[in-house]
Amino acid sequence: MARHHTPDQLAAWQALERHARTLRQVHLKELFVQSECRWSAFTRTVNGLTLDLSKQRWNDETLGHLLALAEEAGLPGAIEALLSGQRVNVSENRPALHTALRLPAEATLTVEGDDIVAAVHESLAQMERLVERLHAGQWRGATGKPIRHVVNLGVGGSDLGPLMVTHALADYRPEDIHPVEVHFASTMDGSQLADYLARFNPETTLFILSSKSFTTIDTLSNANTAKDWLLGRLSEHDDMAGSDPVSAELIVRQHFIGVSASPEKMCAWGIAPDHQLMFWEWVGGRYSLWGTIGLPIALIVGMAHFRALLAGAHAMDNHFRQAPLDQNLPVLLGLAGIWNVNFLDIRAHSILPYDGRLEYFAAYLEQLEMESNGKSVTRQGEEVGYSTCPVLWGQLGPNAQHAFYQLLHQGTQPVVCDFIAPLKRYDDIEDPDTQRHLKAQHRLALANCFAQSRVLMLGDDAVDEEGTPPAHKRYRGNQPSTTVLMDELTPHTLGALIALYEHKVFVQAVIWDINPFDQWGVELGKAIAKETQAMMEGESALDSLDASSQGLIRTFRAAEQGKSLK
Amino acid sequence: MARHHTPDQLAAWQALERHARTLRQVHLKELFVQSECRWSAFTRTVNGLTLDLSKQRWNDETLGHLLALAEEAGLPGAIEALLSGQRVNVSENRPALHTALRLPAEATLTVEGDDIVAAVHESLAQMERLVERLHAGQWRGATGKPIRHVVNLGVGGSDLGPLMVTHALADYRPEDIHPVEVHFASTMDGSQLADYLARFNPETTLFILSSKSFTTIDTLSNANTAKDWLLGRLSEHDDMAGSDPVSAELIVRQHFIGVSASPEKMCAWGIAPDHQLMFWEWVGGRYSLWGTIGLPIALIVGMAHFRALLAGAHAMDNHFRQAPLDQNLPVLLGLAGIWNVNFLDIRAHSILPYDGRLEYFAAYLEQLEMESNGKSVTRQGEEVGYSTCPVLWGQLGPNAQHAFYQLLHQGTQPVVCDFIAPLKRYDDIEDPDTQRHLKAQHRLALANCFAQSRVLMLGDDAVDEEGTPPAHKRYRGNQPSTTVLMDELTPHTLGALIALYEHKVFVQAVIWDINPFDQWGVELGKAIAKETQAMMEGESALDSLDASSQGLIRTFRAAEQGKSLK
Repeated sequence: MARHHTPDQLAAWQALERHARTLRQVHLKELFVQSECRWSAFTRTVNGLTLDLSKQRWNDETLGHLLALAEEAGLPGAIEALLSGQRVNVSENRPALHTALRLPAEATLTVEGDDIVAAVHESLAQMERLVERLHAGQWRGATGKPIRHVVNLGVGGSDLGPLMVTHALADYRPEDIHPVEVHFASTMDGSQLADYLARFNPETTLFILSSKSFTTIDTLSNANTAKDWLLGRLSEHDDMAGSDPVSAELIVRQHFIGVSASPEKMCAWGIAPDHQLMFWEWVGGRYSLWGTIGLPIALIVGMAHFRALLAGAHAMDNHFRQAPLDQNLPVLLGLAGIWNVNFLDIRAHSILPYDGRLEYFAAYLEQLEMESNGKSVTRQGEEVGYSTCPVLWGQLGPNAQHAFYQLLHQGTQPVVCDFIAPLKRYDDIEDPDTQRHLKAQHRLALANCFAQSRVLMLGDDAVDEEGTPPAHKRYRGNQPSTTVLMDELTPHTLGALIALYEHKVFVQAVIWDINPFDQWGVELGKAIAKETQAMMEGESALDSLDASSQGLIRTFRAAEQGKSLK
Repeated sequence: MARHHTPDQLAAWQALERHARTLRQVHLKELFVQSECRWSAFTRTVNGLTLDLSKQRWNDETLGHLLALAEEAGLPGAIEALLSGQRVNVSENRPALHTALRLPAEATLTVEGDDIVAAVHESLAQMERLVERLHAGQWRGATGKPIRHVVNLGVGGSDLGPLMVTHALADYRPEDIHPVEVHFASTMDGSQLADYLARFNPETTLFILSSKSFTTIDTLSNANTAKDWLLGRLSEHDDMAGSDPVSAELIVRQHFIGVSASPEKMCAWGIAPDHQLMFWEWVGGRYSLWGTIGLPIALIVGMAHFRALLAGAHAMDNHFRQAPLDQNLPVLLGLAGIWNVNFLDIRAHSILPYDGRLEYFAAYLEQLEMESNGKSVTRQGEEVGYSTCPVLWGQLGPNAQHAFYQLLHQGTQPVVCDFIAPLKRYDDIEDPDTQRHLKAQHRLALANCFAQSRVLMLGDDAVDEEGTPPAHKRYRGNQPSTTVLMDELTPHTLGALIALYEHKVFVQAVIWDINPFDQWGVELGKAIAKETQAMMEGESALDSLDASSQGLIRTFRAAEQGKSLK
């Protein structure tokens, strides 16, 4: 059997290291002078998305080496393994089949003997039935009133994906439905929930309890607080028929939907079987918005738009599977990242959408990328000798111009940026005056987007100024960036955009030889938190702890006692 | 005259470099073994804040060298220069007097011949009069109805500070006032504004137009869209007396408040003189929430709480001025950062509040730190030869546990974390059952906070497990962190917390010998955006641009034409 090579032992990696020694000395603006056709060489359009990688600090030779690296690392086979349902999640010994959630009904995918497409579509149909009951005003609370407020209780993948998409697609609300407002409560400290409980009428409020394992303490804590709030408030009422007080069972039945991979635990908590939506162990939390975890999305945009979102992602899946590597958007985007991290030592990556509807896109990607690829052990269990996932953060681009762009332009640290913007917008605004204003605002945002990537690239050379500006006004430039243009922000293009990033993450994981589908790095903290809680409540001694942890807990206890001594 | 030394030429800096060579090899957990009194050695409590720096990768000797560096860099004199109103903002040749905005009325501060305290308090009194009119329901729109919705139009410092504080202090809403809801529209593309215009009644909606220069295109674009919306909708109505149609002048007068340092520009735009709030050239945008830019804060929490916020910040100012360096919270926090950035090469810094009310604190700090210290030129105009501001990003800690903590625990990159949490919470919840639940949720959040900093420090050693875990379950630990505990989250402690970070940023700027009060790195982008917009609208040729910018603009134009050809 051939010895396994770590990525940095591959011939292409070593060629890249030699190549990088030269290219690191070349300013990005020089690369534009050296070749006039960088736009066509480094831009690709697929599924309503145009990906411009010409402002990366690379040239044709770099891309050639990177494509060779992808081949050597076995990327084509890995893509096929992912999409065909092989057990690519090695540490948990299971497939990673988020792509199956967006297969069309007529497709087939047999995984370990079972065709899973029918099951996926049955879960979509079940979701659709719940959505339609709510949109028809036919879902009634325990006292008989139609539900008006839905609160999604979930965190991580059960929060960030739905939150991001519902915000992005808020323009796609269907008309002529019973109005249902959707809210999100994710933080374990009860902050958001406490606010909702103070404002909403329990008779017309429904909670979605969304947790793959159904053991997420953050979500269950919120759910228990919500349950007791409902029980306390509604038990005084009469039931729908007006004859008896409402029962606890009826309250829990009518005011909770569960979304989980564990029906047993949902039943034990009290979720009625026909109000349980399933999902599968082979879908990771951060890849789960495409199925029943997407219920808040479907509640806001309706099932037709939700299915369009799936179709857009599926179109990107097909492209990822079929396009040659050098035409393949997720592959090219992933390789640009490898080049930046491993050969230009760029450790920070900023996500900058120029459309307010994408407000939560950066937070979503922070999880997708850092939880997937913030790893340092290969699939074979060896410590890596190279960098993996960079720190990702972001903000709406126009706002970040007034916040942290200063550091991008004049700081001491290299940062790569992703600019994301739709080309067209505000075609549906009815009032012509308001439309004219808003369209001008959209053009203004795009002008800023294009201007910023240009200045980051060129620095001072973006203007023809006479003489040298004073030092504090100088811009070095040479900060690389990617621009992703969407034809319009629609369910379809958003689905494609998200899938583009999902697959980009996979491409990088393959090159780095890490498993993007587990998250062992979050387990230990959970265990220690339990132990810490017991200590805070005085149930166990602190002696085993370090001095800092002891001090923090004693400070907390003193504050608690100060309170009770008052 | 003595030759000016760059920071890295100072004796203490060089001693730190030698010292770091040894200490870089020592795991953080070893430092706890070496000294049992790290808690008392590295923890300080001031003004309701407890700062625990014991989990930094340093020891007594490190701190000794850092304090010597602070002395050598002239920090005590620089603090005095800042607070006494000297022209510390050298590139713009003016003082930076945000601390003057929180001086008590009985203080005096003479700056270049003028006592500015009276002027500051007159502007607070003017703000108070506006707030009271709105809270009394006495501010009426052009058609005579009391204002219900206030929309703050501002971006950067005119948005992030007010947004963060209003969210943090939402529990402090005064009772028994005419209800006024406050909203924020910051993005230049009109996203948030478009949503408000679709939902609010123009008769009862007031806009705050908040821009220091009154030339911020983002804000003025939103304001112009809002103005035309009001004019279009309200001109059909009769005026308050019911006799004549309302005039454009009355509409602009009754529906806009201006906050700016330029009364001329406010007048030219149409803001009525008695609806203009002033602020001063010597307050930077990102330091401006303490004055009239804080109007949205005062509208939500009332003036008494707003003044408590100022008092908390002022208490921290006094501490910063008076406490010896080794007892001085902002100094110690700043020096920890210098150690991490310049001697441990940690380039990323994560801000992790364990309280949902601090949801926008990280975004606020991103601006405060990266716009202030994302610089690479000394005050003397020389290129720096060392790193300055790291990349800062964050998220509510419990949520980030389900998002990017994976990278903190098992990624390849060192990251320093700031954990922030209040000790006490939910004492005011009336319903006893809900209070019990919420207090347990607060304890749970704190337990997680303490557990995470422990695991980040110790890695696998946080548990006594037999045998070695498999590689993918291993935690290296050795990630440093700071914990800031607030007694409670009140206007006073929040004021102190914000001032702590403001001064920390100043401390680092002094050590790095950079000017934290200018932001030249954002000017060029504005100029280029104008030019780009003209090109997008076909008014000028693209030939002068690089291939990528040409391609992006052509793609936009093609999309526009596709639309108009339909």
